[in-house]
Amino acid sequence: MDGHTCDVFVGKLIHTPSLGELEITDATVGVYNGKIVFLEKSMTPKTLEEAKSHHLLKEATIHKLKPLQFMFPGLIDTHIHAPQYPNSGIGIDVPLLQWLEKYTFPLESSLADLEEARQVYKRVVERTLSNGTTFASYFSTLHTPTSALLAEICYSYGQRAYIGKCNMNNLSPDHYCEKSAESSLEATRQLISYMSILDPKREMVTPIITPRFAPSCTEDLLSGCGELAEKHNLPIQTHISENTSEIELVKELFPERKSYADVYDYYKLLTPQTILAHAIHLEDEEIELLTKRSSGISHCPTSNSILASGLANVRKLLDSGINVGLGTDVSGGYAPSILIALRHAAMTSRSLSYVLGDPKVMLDLSELLYLATQGGAEVVSRGDQVGSFAVGKYWDALIVDLSAETHSCVDIFERDTWPVMLSKWVFTSDDRNLAQVWVNGRLVSGFEMKANLKNSTPLTNGVTSSGHQVFKELTQAHLLPRTQCVDTPPSCCGGHCCKEESCRTENCKGAYPANATVTVEEDSGMS
Amino acid sequence: MDGHTCDVFVGKLIHTPSLGELEITDATVGVYNGKIVFLEKSMTPKTLEEAKSHHLLKEATIHKLKPLQFMFPGLIDTHIHAPQYPNSGIGIDVPLLQWLEKYTFPLESSLADLEEARQVYKRVVERTLSNGTTFASYFSTLHTPTSALLAEICYSYGQRAYIGKCNMNNLSPDHYCEKSAESSLEATRQLISYMSILDPKREMVTPIITPRFAPSCTEDLLSGCGELAEKHNLPIQTHISENTSEIELVKELFPERKSYADVYDYYKLLTPQTILAHAIHLEDEEIELLTKRSSGISHCPTSNSILASGLANVRKLLDSGINVGLGTDVSGGYAPSILIALRHAAMTSRSLSYVLGDPKVMLDLSELLYLATQGGAEVVSRGDQVGSFAVGKYWDALIVDLSAETHSCVDIFERDTWPVMLSKWVFTSDDRNLAQVWVNGRLVSGFEMKANLKNSTPLTNGVTSSGHQVFKELTQAHLLPRTQCVDTPPSCCGGHCCKEESCRTENCKGAYPANATVTVEEDSGMS
Ligand SMILES: [Zn+2]
Ligand SMILES: [Zn+2]
Ligand SMILES: [Zn+2]
Ligand SMILES: [Zn+2]
Repeated sequence: MDGHTCDVFVGKLIHTPSLGELEITDATVGVYNGKIVFLEKSMTPKTLEEAKSHHLLKEATIHKLKPLQFMFPGLIDTHIHAPQYPNSGIGIDVPLLQWLEKYTFPLESSLADLEEARQVYKRVVERTLSNGTTFASYFSTLHTPTSALLAEICYSYGQRAYIGKCNMNNLSPDHYCEKSAESSLEATRQLISYMSILDPKREMVTPIITPRFAPSCTEDLLSGCGELAEKHNLPIQTHISENTSEIELVKELFPERKSYADVYDYYKLLTPQTILAHAIHLEDEEIELLTKRSSGISHCPTSNSILASGLANVRKLLDSGINVGLGTDVSGGYAPSILIALRHAAMTSRSLSYVLGDPKVMLDLSELLYLATQGGAEVVSRGDQVGSFAVGKYWDALIVDLSAETHSCVDIFERDTWPVMLSKWVFTSDDRNLAQVWVNGRLVSGFEMKANLKNSTPLTNGVTSSGHQVFKELTQAHLLPRTQCVDTPPSCCGGHCCKEESCRTENCKGAYPANATVTVEEDSGMS
Repeated sequence: MDGHTCDVFVGKLIHTPSLGELEITDATVGVYNGKIVFLEKSMTPKTLEEAKSHHLLKEATIHKLKPLQFMFPGLIDTHIHAPQYPNSGIGIDVPLLQWLEKYTFPLESSLADLEEARQVYKRVVERTLSNGTTFASYFSTLHTPTSALLAEICYSYGQRAYIGKCNMNNLSPDHYCEKSAESSLEATRQLISYMSILDPKREMVTPIITPRFAPSCTEDLLSGCGELAEKHNLPIQTHISENTSEIELVKELFPERKSYADVYDYYKLLTPQTILAHAIHLEDEEIELLTKRSSGISHCPTSNSILASGLANVRKLLDSGINVGLGTDVSGGYAPSILIALRHAAMTSRSLSYVLGDPKVMLDLSELLYLATQGGAEVVSRGDQVGSFAVGKYWDALIVDLSAETHSCVDIFERDTWPVMLSKWVFTSDDRNLAQVWVNGRLVSGFEMKANLKNSTPLTNGVTSSGHQVFKELTQAHLLPRTQCVDTPPSCCGGHCCKEESCRTENCKGAYPANATVTVEEDSGMS
């Protein structure tokens, strides 16, 4: 072992590499240092021998999947508000603009306090990971320190993420509004430089420019956001065309712009790296514009239903060639689970097919799974890195388990074929059916991880080893008190403690199990 | 102990005794032999002393709820197809009439085999109970023996239920269609007399007249169904106005009737004991007719979305004075959980409010909870017996647990008030949050039951003791082989084995725990 992870998985593999393409196959997958280096669609002993003779896999751990287990790409949440997580499942009594005033802004504002934020952000990252979200595009609050904290928690728990500090200096309540465009931009620059220390290669966590939505930004702020994104080559996320009152408001505020989308386009906020949440009521010219700019859309069906925003026509967007992924939109949506968003996307497309009298708008299972994985990957401009299985892509993956021993609500009968079992997973499963959740070749969640810590990835994962230096700097910067354990469990070290002086897991009184096999290895460093 | 159950519960109590009324209160509830005999809205030591001095509660077991636990009425599923359970979560590719042909009829037909049916029915009863359904109105297949088996399984597991053998002698596939109206009616009469042995008082299980839907019945069968229901004073269930093609078909088949509802009315199938599933596209005259007949409606939002049937306007039905409850419509709906149906009812009402531009159609939390409990109780004509808490009503109840130790997906924060926690239970919980599920004063499911069998109700519950005689007769009738254990666990005896020769739990090799405290008491019989 040279300090890198090295695993071979043998079993059923399911993914949707392109829209409408559902592949269910036997497979042998070799993973070295976070990336897939071997993939054959066979699980014979001969194929396994082939894998083991690959020069990077000679010392691989072999994972043979059980009969009711399969590999599936990690789920991608293209739109989620981390600070709103405590409001999940509440506040169904008002539409969007009142909901912001009554529930959302007061909560987000209260998270200026780092300790409050830490409690919330740990839970949301843990919870989304345990529901299979291996990549999340987060809105944080308007505060830089808490946004940096969210980045660190994602990094530490091992969730790939975009982290956006909200830009909002207009039409927001006094207690939760930035003073000026310049102060908002300066705070964003701080987050960017901060995160460039945490993860210089932007492999795990990446800052994302996040003007909350057009009405909450003055024109100079919108324009500054566009410039920042361009200067640092960063992704952008915002909301668009969610609610008819909101659209009216945008038209009043920006009378010289042709449309809501045109507002963003004018300020250079529509790029191939832009994620637009909701996009329910787009005019045809807006769809054309988004297609031209190659911007992506996050479809958030749970939120759209609950907030009575409307029913988005995903089929029309897809037919226009726009990339579409799924978003939980926590806490507009009540569930931190992309599978639940997928179920609601199915329901929305079917309700809409009734309303429009057009069966073609229905999304089928393979299309829905694509939205949850490869489609989301395209929306976050990582389609070549995650979203499906191929040599060269990251091992961001779920090991799904449908057996009765999971004690989940999935009931498999003898007659069930693989397509049937897949559909049952999609519609009737929950986090109990995720045996393992892998990100970047590291085991970061799943029931097997908790039950059997000794199988988790050893410390000297490239990502984690570089992380410790950053944690030290963060600690010295007094952002995080040294005595505070941010990660119990999964820890920053994949379940092990590195025993470095600066590692906060040393002080953890949490669920770190006394009888776990602790493997301590030297960091190999990371160039 | 005189052979009856006797329990006092002390803690938070939440229910919706009438539409729009949500009560969250401290409470002390005394239960004797399945019914509430004491209820005070206080949980002081003084009130507990009062309860314990009640002449029926002197030897009661005291259950003090934990801080994050509360009592809630058992959930009522007003429309569910037991034999379709293996298809839960599959078949989202076609609308209603094709879905019946492709997925539903072949599966139902295959359950003519008693062993097949037993596997399926055990799972559906276990699964709905563990999701908090204390009362279910079941469609079985068209077969009498399997329908009788479903009745026995409900009885044995302790789920209150209506059991309907489908009447269908028309427009059904050859392999799954009754020969004549008379043979269909005779099979129904067999089930009725059978169940009058199983539960003569119709306390736990009651036969329900179940013409599948108008198109699947000839006129003489519809008319015979109406007569049977009247003669035996039985409830009736069927489908109505689910899908626009179905409505067209009914109009073609019954040109002399004014409407779909009028077909049922003409054959005396619209009574105060009638449950009509779906009722999405009712004309105003039909709504008037249902109001006049006091028939109830089962709203099945999951199924209606998935099958692209349309969005039912529950507000309009409620405003007309019609009783409305919720149905999972498994497997048109993918989830055997009324809480999930409730979430989708919330979403449907909000999507509809967008489509109609009418915010008034949105259902609020207390209304949704009413639909899931007291509203459902009214629909099944048991509003005076179940659905909310009051002296004289059955103890059909859930002990909900929101603590982190449940390992569910509910996340409670310090700031959360009781209304917030209630809403989080409704929208983010699952079966892991049900510590105890009680029906008729008997503990029948919940995680505490499995963890701690010794706390479950002893054998000599009135219902169970009478049951054994019936099981013996069923066994002798060769419907159920004597060596077969129908109930592992919960057993027919609430987790204990009666050690009677005829009890099938003797042969159970299932999960009956070796270290459980087995309390065997003499049956006190039941008058
Ligand atoms: Zn949002
Ligand atoms: Zn460490
Ligand atoms: Zn039905
Ligand atoms: Zn027994």
